[in-house]
Amino acid sequence: METAQQKIERARARRETGLAKLEPKLAGLPAQLPRNSLELPGSILTAREIELTEKYDVVELLAILKAREVSVEEVTRAFLRRAAVAHAATNCLVELMWDQAIARAKHLDSLPEPQGAFFGLPISTKEHHGMVGENVITTASVIAWVDRKHGSNTMYDDLWEEGCVFYARTTQPQTIMHLETVSNLWGRTDNPYNRDLTAGGSSGGESALIAMRGSLELVVTSVAVFAALPHLLAFMVSSKPSTKRITVAGQTGHMAGRETIFSTPGPMTVDRKAMELLMRVILSKQPWRKDPSIVPMPWTPYNFTKPLKIAVQWWDGVVKPHPPITRALKEVAAACQKAGMRVVDWDCEKLDHKKSWDIISALYWPDGGLETLDCLEGAGDTVLPLTKWIIQEQPSVKNMTQLCYTRDAYRTSYAKTWNATADDDGDEVDVILCPASFGAATPHEKSKYWGYTAHWNMLDYPGVVFPVTSVDASKDTKDLNYKPINEQDQFIYDLYDPELFAGAPVGLQIVGRRLQEEKVLAALELVEQAMGRK
Amino acid sequence: METAQQKIERARARRETGLAKLEPKLAGLPAQLPRNSLELPGSILTAREIELTEKYDVVELLAILKAREVSVEEVTRAFLRRAAVAHAATNCLVELMWDQAIARAKHLDSLPEPQGAFFGLPISTKEHHGMVGENVITTASVIAWVDRKHGSNTMYDDLWEEGCVFYARTTQPQTIMHLETVSNLWGRTDNPYNRDLTAGGSSGGESALIAMRGSLELVVTSVAVFAALPHLLAFMVSSKPSTKRITVAGQTGHMAGRETIFSTPGPMTVDRKAMELLMRVILSKQPWRKDPSIVPMPWTPYNFTKPLKIAVQWWDGVVKPHPPITRALKEVAAACQKAGMRVVDWDCEKLDHKKSWDIISALYWPDGGLETLDCLEGAGDTVLPLTKWIIQEQPSVKNMTQLCYTRDAYRTSYAKTWNATADDDGDEVDVILCPASFGAATPHEKSKYWGYTAHWNMLDYPGVVFPVTSVDASKDTKDLNYKPINEQDQFIYDLYDPELFAGAPVGLQIVGRRLQEEKVLAALELVEQAMGRK
Repeated sequence: METAQQKIERARARRETGLAKLEPKLAGLPAQLPRNSLELPGSILTAREIELTEKYDVVELLAILKAREVSVEEVTRAFLRRAAVAHAATNCLVELMWDQAIARAKHLDSLPEPQGAFFGLPISTKEHHGMVGENVITTASVIAWVDRKHGSNTMYDDLWEEGCVFYARTTQPQTIMHLETVSNLWGRTDNPYNRDLTAGGSSGGESALIAMRGSLELVVTSVAVFAALPHLLAFMVSSKPSTKRITVAGQTGHMAGRETIFSTPGPMTVDRKAMELLMRVILSKQPWRKDPSIVPMPWTPYNFTKPLKIAVQWWDGVVKPHPPITRALKEVAAACQKAGMRVVDWDCEKLDHKKSWDIISALYWPDGGLETLDCLEGAGDTVLPLTKWIIQEQPSVKNMTQLCYTRDAYRTSYAKTWNATADDDGDEVDVILCPASFGAATPHEKSKYWGYTAHWNMLDYPGVVFPVTSVDASKDTKDLNYKPINEQDQFIYDLYDPELFAGAPVGLQIVGRRLQEEKVLAALELVEQAMGRK
Repeated sequence: METAQQKIERARARRETGLAKLEPKLAGLPAQLPRNSLELPGSILTAREIELTEKYDVVELLAILKAREVSVEEVTRAFLRRAAVAHAATNCLVELMWDQAIARAKHLDSLPEPQGAFFGLPISTKEHHGMVGENVITTASVIAWVDRKHGSNTMYDDLWEEGCVFYARTTQPQTIMHLETVSNLWGRTDNPYNRDLTAGGSSGGESALIAMRGSLELVVTSVAVFAALPHLLAFMVSSKPSTKRITVAGQTGHMAGRETIFSTPGPMTVDRKAMELLMRVILSKQPWRKDPSIVPMPWTPYNFTKPLKIAVQWWDGVVKPHPPITRALKEVAAACQKAGMRVVDWDCEKLDHKKSWDIISALYWPDGGLETLDCLEGAGDTVLPLTKWIIQEQPSVKNMTQLCYTRDAYRTSYAKTWNATADDDGDEVDVILCPASFGAATPHEKSKYWGYTAHWNMLDYPGVVFPVTSVDASKDTKDLNYKPINEQDQFIYDLYDPELFAGAPVGLQIVGRRLQEEKVLAALELVEQAMGRK
């Protein structure tokens, strides 16, 4: 009988076999990894590889692929190599798909004409979604599933039809329900900016990979949180559509069939235009014809006809954000105001965000977590502290049906509040500008306040996270006079240390009403323009 | 301590107080009610009342109300009186809202200009939805709730804003989950065509009322079945939108918060045009702004650009429909073919509709029916046979999460089958023409096969039921050679007797893919035109 440890070793050996196919091998990796890994690719990859992975954004890369100014194989090899560097620095991969990716690239190069909206584009994916192809194994980062056969999913089939190249599958945490990416099976994924901080979760593998530009476009899934992590990683845009806008059909995970809180894929890309392209292409495939739970709404770009009315959520009424977040809010709000937008406050104190967390944290586990814990314990997969925290240390509720009713009442009252924002000038707030977390990336094992992200999942509002600034120890000093108002606030206050976070990227998010994905991206465009970006 | 019987008597006395306000009183009711009640209004109402309640369809009535060719009060009084006749004949009302309706009518008449899309239109409602106003009591037909205060709901508020007059609240069965309308609190609602047959359920009160033209437009809610009953009652169109297209927010019932199977309002009207108007007006109110669970899809009329491709479901692979249903299918299919439509077969045998029932009948009661049974038993409300049948005599399943997963897989496979209908000529089937039940109205206490209606709830497909023909004992003879293929088929076969059903209306339904409400109504228009109707 194979022990849990033997299973882990076998899985990791399998991963190594894939990585070992890399050609040429990586040379020049330092024996001791630096605190910040972002300079590593420059010292390991060739100039041409750097060019192919850094010079172009997604739209530009697609253009030269389509024009056949570069072969799919050359681009694919460059991203495979860069992903391997990212993995060496951060432990972000479950699988490097060397053989499959190159075979796919050669096939695409052999076509008489380029075909598909994503012709030749390397796309990396979160492992638990599954993968196009035969003999796919999906572990979802648990020992119990180390040999579990699993096929593709509906969205990947669609992307495949559009000509992409899948080449890397990335890590997720145990149970896929931490804001830090760590599991017994694959270990911890590090933050490439700062090894002392987390890479976030549940999509920490993708975050690390994209931050190191080992990928330009990823498709990740989030049930609990969206973009809780990408804000850690500058130069990245991460979105969470409303649930049932794009499909998760075919992915694997715990509690399949749960509907108290649905999950949704959350695409992450290097820029806003790539995000819009991805959403447009995904919806052009009419996923509702294959997965009838999806709402049949084609992508319909939104145009504002009046100056944006944007509400700023300075805090959530429970936990005070760290100084760099507040500074980022102020800077963006000022830029918006200067650009002629109507900037108002989003008053959270009366909206009871704590209640929102009490509801959603119970709804995550309609069975109290039994199925998930059984899966772990049955395989000798030690239950990690962050798993215990999310499953066992939150309010527990027996009557799920009643709790769903409470959830809906909360959603309705929130909608009423939003409607009432039209009372002053006849126009309701278009979007909310808000933190995506209480701070920058969190120190290890401390990701225990989800309020700034889970709240929007609770409401099922779409949002997008975008980079704003980075922690500046001289500007973002600690307020030594602040008196925390509750235990959670104290915990988060105590975490802050300007030196520890110095240089860490800081992002914010823009949130819209349910199923207004197009409006959210249109608002981001205006906000980024107000910030002086393209 | 008041007994259950005393509570029933008190509730019924309250109802009588409302009915007693009728002015003038009903005169000419026969001591012994006839088997068929449809001629009763003609012998009791005035010529002017008959004119106002019979001469106009909804659109026409709205036109003369708007032009102020008739006062709202006169119209309202006519419908109040006609509803009282319908109630005397069938026991279809929980409340006649004499004072409120006349006060409302006088208010509308006093306005300088008519306002709202439904200005002055009397609309009757299913009681458990609640009602606009103060001190509303909603019993939902259970003794436990005989004094339960309950307000309005979002949709009724919207209709009220559009100027309608609410004037009658109708019966529903115990638990609102029978296909026959009977409860200890309010007794049995009879079928106005034939006292030996049911008035259907759960909206039996509305069915009886509309059949007797005591109402032109009703708003009813269905969780389990749609239009299982209106097909019993000719000259009526009944629709079930997909769930989450229009709102149920604010209605009361058992298991609030259940989401294994959602309920949806199912409007019933005297004709197709009124149905389209109702849907259009309801969605023009943007219900998703108040109830964020609603999909934000405005009403968008559908236009076919090719001849309709219509699939005929001759049976469901489990139970053979009665002869008049099969004849109706043949007649409509022939008319469609003659009109140039592409008519194909919908092959149910491979689609396993029995599995569909096994899934949905368990999903109705995520708690095994405990909450509902507690509510009944706690109040001394005898559990009726049809309640026992639906709660306790269906497959029971413990793991609801897993069952939801199975449900979704079934839905996905059904969608795949629908997609595959495009394989022959490149166009997928537009709609399915199918029975709404195995037969015409069912004899009392026999409504135990839901397969022809619950199946579409299970899939969450929208549909509309429309009148086709009536049972003709000479044409619709019993096939004495038929050998039933299973127990249910035997049960249904044994029910058929041409003499018992003679003259009963026969309807069929048109079903479309999820959230294609507009397409379904557009198809109905073409089908009715093919049948030689306007």
